[in-house]
Amino acid sequence: MSDDFSFAVQATDGAARKGEIFTPRGTIRTPAFMPVGTAATVKAMFPQDVRATGADILLGNVYHLMLRPGAERVAKLGGLHEFMRWPYPILTDSGGFQVMSLAKLRKLDESGVTFQSHIDGSRHHLSPERSMEIQQLLGSDIQMQFDECVRLPCSDEEAERAMRLSLRWAERSRKAFREQPGRAIFGIVQGGANKALRVESARALADMDFHGLAVGGLAVGEPQEVMLDMLETTVPHLPAGKPRYLMGVGTPDDIMQAVARGIDMFDCVMPTRAGRHGLAYTRFGKINIKNSRHAEDTRPLDPDSSCPAARDYSRAYLHHLVKAGEILGMMLLTQANVAYYQQLMVGLRAAIVEGRLSDFIAETRAQWAEGEGSHLAP
Amino acid sequence: MSDDFSFAVQATDGAARKGEIFTPRGTIRTPAFMPVGTAATVKAMFPQDVRATGADILLGNVYHLMLRPGAERVAKLGGLHEFMRWPYPILTDSGGFQVMSLAKLRKLDESGVTFQSHIDGSRHHLSPERSMEIQQLLGSDIQMQFDECVRLPCSDEEAERAMRLSLRWAERSRKAFREQPGRAIFGIVQGGANKALRVESARALADMDFHGLAVGGLAVGEPQEVMLDMLETTVPHLPAGKPRYLMGVGTPDDIMQAVARGIDMFDCVMPTRAGRHGLAYTRFGKINIKNSRHAEDTRPLDPDSSCPAARDYSRAYLHHLVKAGEILGMMLLTQANVAYYQQLMVGLRAAIVEGRLSDFIAETRAQWAEGEGSHLAP
Repeated sequence: MSDDFSFAVQATDGAARKGEIFTPRGTIRTPAFMPVGTAATVKAMFPQDVRATGADILLGNVYHLMLRPGAERVAKLGGLHEFMRWPYPILTDSGGFQVMSLAKLRKLDESGVTFQSHIDGSRHHLSPERSMEIQQLLGSDIQMQFDECVRLPCSDEEAERAMRLSLRWAERSRKAFREQPGRAIFGIVQGGANKALRVESARALADMDFHGLAVGGLAVGEPQEVMLDMLETTVPHLPAGKPRYLMGVGTPDDIMQAVARGIDMFDCVMPTRAGRHGLAYTRFGKINIKNSRHAEDTRPLDPDSSCPAARDYSRAYLHHLVKAGEILGMMLLTQANVAYYQQLMVGLRAAIVEGRLSDFIAETRAQWAEGEGSHLAP
Repeated sequence: MSDDFSFAVQATDGAARKGEIFTPRGTIRTPAFMPVGTAATVKAMFPQDVRATGADILLGNVYHLMLRPGAERVAKLGGLHEFMRWPYPILTDSGGFQVMSLAKLRKLDESGVTFQSHIDGSRHHLSPERSMEIQQLLGSDIQMQFDECVRLPCSDEEAERAMRLSLRWAERSRKAFREQPGRAIFGIVQGGANKALRVESARALADMDFHGLAVGGLAVGEPQEVMLDMLETTVPHLPAGKPRYLMGVGTPDDIMQAVARGIDMFDCVMPTRAGRHGLAYTRFGKINIKNSRHAEDTRPLDPDSSCPAARDYSRAYLHHLVKAGEILGMMLLTQANVAYYQQLMVGLRAAIVEGRLSDFIAETRAQWAEGEGSHLAP
């Protein structure tokens, strides 16, 4: 394996691409879904089970890790990979998004953001330079620029201000990253729901020396059609030779639609969070396992799944575990959901290679619509 | 494998016995520790990981299972083994102990106990006949007589009343069990902390046609020396050819001491409950992983353990997970604790065969006393 970070597109189908990102820690097959390992753990999963679902890369959160256990401590303990027993690629976000959504008493200025920890109220400062330092201390393979993400809807003035600040922070982040052989830094397109701002942001970032580009500030409250509209506007201005990452997205359908519009990477808490709340993502659509109609259903979530959690346990048992508040219920549903997301990515990649992405999307949606019981019909 | 339930003692060392219980669902090596699978799950563990720790048999709770999901429902779903994906032996308690400790508004008379569910306040009745019916519906391999367990200390009058009631219920339980090929029913010695009552109970039960005998009503608040005194008094009156089960016990030291006094089977929530609360049982004693001195300790719980949770993750990582309230922390510590208990049983069985049980107990206690750091000393 090379010691360089690189990306190769191996097949296309319309705007969609099937490719591979090479890193010294392993190859990431794209389109890729990155399970979220917030606080150095994909919640309720053993790392080897995350790997077994087919995940090539995880996401870690700078905001959570800087507060607990602390970036310097993680570095002292050998870095995030060693700490959490995940020797494969890790992408870290820059902390900006979570500062806005979780921290208290934020004060934002040109230098960065001062905020209070949601854990103990302690004061912290994040700047582009400190965010990059933290990501380097963690040992992240793909590091994200520090940006400001605004909630939608927002005024054009607010979107423009945040986008321009994020561009200035992009330059500072890129500079602070310096060169880290085998590691990458991605810039982040902002601009709210304003097409002109999105295009300007994408073009400016494309001219900087980033290894990949992300689209941020979407799936933050807007309808799916607005998100897809922004992607259609933005993606043509992103360099074809670099990976494209849609941050924090999304539902299985969001992912399929974004892949069709040229996105290569995704992350979202949806499969893990849903798994802890009794919701299962399957080929047959979303199943609320708490519903009493599952109480005596001996069928597994999906008899054809390669995931033991989806294949080997009855819905009746999962229903019982969730109703009883048992941790094993969260463990099994989280594993089944992450596995389903990965299986969806396998299907998307194969469909792109075969040039039948739009058929694959239509078939997948049809199976969701048919529902969970249809596979037993004669 | 035979279709009969049987027990063979293969070696003795003083009062201690090393043996095997044969059941159609598998062999149970004794002395055996049974992890507790309260509500059809050993909390926070996948069944295959419970098995991998070396567990030959699990315990299920009639009280919990009759309330949720219900014994008739479990039977309809194929029985408890199928329901919880544990094809190996299962022992069920009779519900008596938990009715006393968990249920509300109990009313006890000769017929049985009427109580309110701690989950939803619904009214239920348990009698020897209903308890045995539930255990048969669950498909339990080893079923326990319905008994009344009193808290210690208690008056001799109270201990005698409960012991005599339990003997009458023993006869009714044995009759209700009828014959279930390959399955067993155990009687339960009661009598509080009164030696004469214990002896009378043991003798009376020994004359009934049980497949094994349990000692109940201990480790319910009394000092260890009282418990051991009762065992020394009781065990000589139990048939040598039948397995002896000390219910709800205990700490690793309790188990060693009871094995030395002729006990063959144990169950306890300690390893699993402790694992959910940041406490690890190891060869080096009990470790409170929440203690800040573990925050930068890169050592695993036990580098020589065959359990991945004890061997592959740093104490610093476990500390972080527990402090952050992460489910993975509970998963790892529970697995490590159940594995330690099973490893202790492996050691006890080997020591009995080698005729060096007292040395093994002394060495094990010495290593606990030396503490967790000693194995790194030169």
